[in-house]
Amino acid sequence: MAAPTSSQESHPSLLIPGPIESTDDVAKSMSHYAQSHVGAPFVNTFGESLTMLRDLFQTKNPKSQPFVIAGSGTLGWDLVAANLAEPGEDVLVLHTGYFADSFADCFETYGVKPTQLKADVGSRPQLPEIEKALKEKKYKLLTVTHVDTSTGVLSQIKALSDLVQRVSPETLLVVDGVCSIGAEELHFDDMKFDVALTASQKAIGCPPGLSIMMVSEKAMDVFRNRKSPPGSYYASFKNWTPIMQNYEAKKPSYFATPPTQLVQALHTALKAITQKPMSERFATHKKASDRVKKAITEMGLKQLAGEEENQAHAMTAIYLPEGLTPPEILPKLMERGVVFAGGLHKQIAT
Amino acid sequence: MAAPTSSQESHPSLLIPGPIESTDDVAKSMSHYAQSHVGAPFVNTFGESLTMLRDLFQTKNPKSQPFVIAGSGTLGWDLVAANLAEPGEDVLVLHTGYFADSFADCFETYGVKPTQLKADVGSRPQLPEIEKALKEKKYKLLTVTHVDTSTGVLSQIKALSDLVQRVSPETLLVVDGVCSIGAEELHFDDMKFDVALTASQKAIGCPPGLSIMMVSEKAMDVFRNRKSPPGSYYASFKNWTPIMQNYEAKKPSYFATPPTQLVQALHTALKAITQKPMSERFATHKKASDRVKKAITEMGLKQLAGEEENQAHAMTAIYLPEGLTPPEILPKLMERGVVFAGGLHKQIAT
Repeated sequence: MAAPTSSQESHPSLLIPGPIESTDDVAKSMSHYAQSHVGAPFVNTFGESLTMLRDLFQTKNPKSQPFVIAGSGTLGWDLVAANLAEPGEDVLVLHTGYFADSFADCFETYGVKPTQLKADVGSRPQLPEIEKALKEKKYKLLTVTHVDTSTGVLSQIKALSDLVQRVSPETLLVVDGVCSIGAEELHFDDMKFDVALTASQKAIGCPPGLSIMMVSEKAMDVFRNRKSPPGSYYASFKNWTPIMQNYEAKKPSYFATPPTQLVQALHTALKAITQKPMSERFATHKKASDRVKKAITEMGLKQLAGEEENQAHAMTAIYLPEGLTPPEILPKLMERGVVFAGGLHKQIAT
Repeated sequence: MAAPTSSQESHPSLLIPGPIESTDDVAKSMSHYAQSHVGAPFVNTFGESLTMLRDLFQTKNPKSQPFVIAGSGTLGWDLVAANLAEPGEDVLVLHTGYFADSFADCFETYGVKPTQLKADVGSRPQLPEIEKALKEKKYKLLTVTHVDTSTGVLSQIKALSDLVQRVSPETLLVVDGVCSIGAEELHFDDMKFDVALTASQKAIGCPPGLSIMMVSEKAMDVFRNRKSPPGSYYASFKNWTPIMQNYEAKKPSYFATPPTQLVQALHTALKAITQKPMSERFATHKKASDRVKKAITEMGLKQLAGEEENQAHAMTAIYLPEGLTPPEILPKLMERGVVFAGGLHKQIAT
């Protein structure tokens, strides 16, 4: 049940890698009274949220461009595929689970040609294979899922970034951090990312409904030098960039009505997160994760991500003991006031 | 200020054709505790909301397909352009103000060829011109803005539908009802609409963040018979139709995480709306609107929509007295606790 200190209605604790529990302050912000999306109070709230995202992603380059758009996390893939690659161009998708397949589908929708580099379930493509792939063909961008929700596999993004810089520096590095940003180590500038994308409902601790993204100066230049127009209207950087820049400059601007209450909740969540250095937050998540993983090992359960260096801190994916399946065990956990998620990866769902 | 009976924090009354004031029940639903998007309680809430939309749009055909997707109202245009027209096809856009230009832009993004039929500010394209246009060329679909927010012009959609049925019955009729659905007369089946689209924050009385749409059986067949795949990934009927059908059948399903709190708020809003016959709701809106318009006329102010039959009931757009501009008058209204919106239409903004 919710912690006794919470002012929220008593409810089962939600421990899934989907929407997470929110603090009472964030929940309260969701019921904010109606505001004009172009009035000064809301414009200030939205503008401050965009600026705080620079701290969350750890970027000091004023030309890094944050985006906050009404939509599910999935919308982030359209933003990448429709703006940063052009029809006919090749992109490399590192496959660690369910989400890489969908990202590849998304690229194909916009006429972009994805090559998937696959690994066994619970592992990830290794650096030598990635190096080989990058040398064989010119890729416009490379996508990596920071933490794959379907397996709990953590990608080694710093080493990957170093590799890209060394072998194919013009290739844009796109990090899908839906399950990681706010919880796992991530330094947008230092790690030389070009895109880091997430959603409001994961490690930021806000309800779902916002697609959130940081785009590097280099990637924004690549966008501005496109030969073809963006492949999407709603997910077009052309339509959204001036809006984001105006809001951050505290000037009203209109392309589509922003979800004012969700932005209020994001503001509240980011304010709490950015009060402390991000390094402290990462350390806290790692400590909590280590405790969970130690307990799991002591219980004799096995994690999907075999090697310790492959294990995420934002979440933990475990194999159930031989003979037990989610349909048997999840209702029993529910009776005890805890909601876990069943398997997502098709090959090993149960 | 908010009505004294409201439990919401005291705030200026928001009287703009953007987000509208919500009831306390709807505001409370926004701070709903975190729920699994695939757990039975949320699946039921989402499923019931989809079913209630059938009453809101007044369709009894079980093959009419409702969609509720995280996004701004603008996303509805992508849903139409990327799914119901194919690259190279012609579509007819009836121009009554700002929004037709944007819808036309959206079609062009997906390779569809829009022809705009324009009218003077405060008026709308007339039936004989529309008939002429429909006879000159084969149009895949025709779009009409039911109430244009930039002018307050109400389109005569029943007469338009009769015309389309008579002259070009295979042309799909798409009604952009962002500013009208829930407030103006609309009978999806009787008026033979193929698409009616809206957003959560207008006449439904929910906070912004949901794109809401009803698609006819005929239009869904047109979609299924496409030769090319949908032009968008996030806005693809292919990705969303099974999700919507599963949720309405109370079965969990996943393509992208739905905004659980916004869906709770939508459920609360729709439950209140569908308790009474829609005809009563339309009559109430008309009565309130008539009162506002009478007062405006008595004050000597002129409406943008000149002819009474062109005037919307969901909103009222007025010219300010000669010599007064929004930057002068809006702050004074704000001091009195009321937020109005300035001009949106470029030609007549002040």
